[in-house]
Amino acid sequence: MDKVRMGFVGLGGRGRGNMNLVLTMPDVEVTAVCDLYEDRVERAAKDCQQKKGNDPYRTTDYKELIKRDDVDAVIVTSAWESHIPIAIAAMKAGKAVAMEVGGAYSLNDCFDLVRTQEQTGAPFYFLENCCFDEIELIVTAMVRKGLFGDVVHCSGSYAHDLREEVTRGEENRHYRLRNYLNRNCENYPTHELGPIAKLLGINRGNRMVSLVSVASKSAGMQAYVKKHSDNINPHLIGKDFMQGDVVNTLITCAHGETIHLMLDTSLPRGYDRQFTVHGTSAYSRCSAIHIDGESHEVYHNLYDYKHLLPSCWTDMTDEGRALGHGGIDGIEFRVFVDCLKEGKPMPIEVYDAAAWMCISCLSETSIAQGGKPQEIPDFTHGQWMIRPLEDVVEFPDVEI
Amino acid sequence: MDKVRMGFVGLGGRGRGNMNLVLTMPDVEVTAVCDLYEDRVERAAKDCQQKKGNDPYRTTDYKELIKRDDVDAVIVTSAWESHIPIAIAAMKAGKAVAMEVGGAYSLNDCFDLVRTQEQTGAPFYFLENCCFDEIELIVTAMVRKGLFGDVVHCSGSYAHDLREEVTRGEENRHYRLRNYLNRNCENYPTHELGPIAKLLGINRGNRMVSLVSVASKSAGMQAYVKKHSDNINPHLIGKDFMQGDVVNTLITCAHGETIHLMLDTSLPRGYDRQFTVHGTSAYSRCSAIHIDGESHEVYHNLYDYKHLLPSCWTDMTDEGRALGHGGIDGIEFRVFVDCLKEGKPMPIEVYDAAAWMCISCLSETSIAQGGKPQEIPDFTHGQWMIRPLEDVVEFPDVEI
Repeated sequence: MDKVRMGFVGLGGRGRGNMNLVLTMPDVEVTAVCDLYEDRVERAAKDCQQKKGNDPYRTTDYKELIKRDDVDAVIVTSAWESHIPIAIAAMKAGKAVAMEVGGAYSLNDCFDLVRTQEQTGAPFYFLENCCFDEIELIVTAMVRKGLFGDVVHCSGSYAHDLREEVTRGEENRHYRLRNYLNRNCENYPTHELGPIAKLLGINRGNRMVSLVSVASKSAGMQAYVKKHSDNINPHLIGKDFMQGDVVNTLITCAHGETIHLMLDTSLPRGYDRQFTVHGTSAYSRCSAIHIDGESHEVYHNLYDYKHLLPSCWTDMTDEGRALGHGGIDGIEFRVFVDCLKEGKPMPIEVYDAAAWMCISCLSETSIAQGGKPQEIPDFTHGQWMIRPLEDVVEFPDVEI
Repeated sequence: MDKVRMGFVGLGGRGRGNMNLVLTMPDVEVTAVCDLYEDRVERAAKDCQQKKGNDPYRTTDYKELIKRDDVDAVIVTSAWESHIPIAIAAMKAGKAVAMEVGGAYSLNDCFDLVRTQEQTGAPFYFLENCCFDEIELIVTAMVRKGLFGDVVHCSGSYAHDLREEVTRGEENRHYRLRNYLNRNCENYPTHELGPIAKLLGINRGNRMVSLVSVASKSAGMQAYVKKHSDNINPHLIGKDFMQGDVVNTLITCAHGETIHLMLDTSLPRGYDRQFTVHGTSAYSRCSAIHIDGESHEVYHNLYDYKHLLPSCWTDMTDEGRALGHGGIDGIEFRVFVDCLKEGKPMPIEVYDAAAWMCISCLSETSIAQGGKPQEIPDFTHGQWMIRPLEDVVEFPDVEI
């Protein structure tokens, strides 16, 4: 395979962004575009014409797109609710799949996703771009080199003020609004959990065994609607949002490590993933690291350890950084295309997707049951005990 | 009452420190000193002689101390396990009590403490110095003025590398060692929970209803013992410590607010209480505050709002700062002595002590039950719904 021919399903903000990213890649062609809304389809087709000069197949029905012979890989960038059904249908149609992140709505969906991939053997890739971010990779490299000793606890958050995006959901035809109106859960766990799960070897020597989840009251969206009532969709005035403002989830792993996730998306604050790793020999939080034996006040800047980064970062160009989220989106799609072309296994695979996404529906149940612990299933049939540890990138063989 | 005559029970590091602090107060006399160990009693008596010129009564039996007519107030600064029994005995003997912080070992102990105070009417004060710290007070003042809107979530930690202190427990006759060897719980919740509970009006319009608690594996102490095996108490080599390194606790309050506590005391890191408040109009973390409506990147320094602090801070002298923990210990004892002399109610009272301390034994059960939610009792007989909100200090009437 010299060129990967992609079909995009879901062309809202994120889908169109990803499509425009892959249009910059010489070994990618976008041969088909699909969305429920025709205007989005037309706009995306125009992007392809302008950037690559080709006229992609257009449809509002993904079932038509996945049947086509000129599509090698289906990129699922639709609403959260349709990620798994579309990915399953595409794999059954013999396509490779790259699926955007989000949470799952039921454990059955997660199992179906895994079993379909196992049965079809279709290449499956989960588009968790934060697994490729600099701090996450530098810390993971340090952990692999033993600097942290035994890692016992990790935490992270999706702290992102989405009040404006949520309230504009109807105008923007965006899935978040209906989720915030109807559900109460850790609805977006993978940005923080993905890098932590990779670091802890989840599905590769380790697994997540159980969780508890607790939600605060929901006050942020209503306060926002009230404050901006002059300039807001009138349907939202006085509406109850079921989504708690802050959802905390505590996960226990097979080897006794714990993970703390916080969702914080409907209150004012700056963006923060708060990637934090507690080991017996070091502690890192965001871009700072404390190393055992040094004075307690001493924290080093993790950006001073960029030599630990893999080539995708050390070779990063300004153009690469501009492709999306500071460079991680470009890395993410480069990895996907290279693995497809070379027939290599995907570094973020279906077991990862299922394990990370199921946190959403399990947290929903735990919250509804007053914080009662929920079993996190093993999607690997026990193979997690045998599967070797592998990172999403290859780290250079250098000294810390 | 012109002068408060104090008897100290428990003269280890903290007890002696507190005693030396009150020896600087002109309206305090230390008339009796007690510890299980005679050398500590002698050393404390010498402190009194040197600093105040009086010779206090000395005993190794607190039951003797609490009987004495020359003692108005018993200061309980003994090991965690004996705080409640000694406080109860002292109240029954007609003494005022100031009790150092720590966690409870059973719910019954907490109920006994409360009922004894109610029956005896003895003044009872809980020595949670962090309730008086600058950032906690500045943020509380801001919350009272409405800057945060509706507060929906708070978090804090006791993050303090105590590995050296724990391993020297036998030599130092310190209670932490036996607790870390035998228990697994949020063993020291009050430094972070106290200010949060005051802010949320716990026992005064609000209450904590339930909690879940999850502990990581215990690896930090063993790794530390192994690394320092040349220079460590040989009894500890190869010993299992039951205390998990990182304990996360999620508390739900009656009005839907949630509280996240983290205990992190047996791994390398800097000291941090991470006092964090999430409101519908502002967010603060440690010394930074973001205010709704400003650009997401903008955080202000909370130390720029010192004009919101009460007079105990605005009048703080260098001598006051030097008394202990940057000034908060001096404030804490000044408040106690003033309330006693003026017959005023204590701002941190028995209901606070019981509600905060019970987190320890409830977290112990929750952890042992795999994170199962535990009911947090109401110690006030439902009076929390009627009791008016009151802060530990009086804030000045100034603009933010």
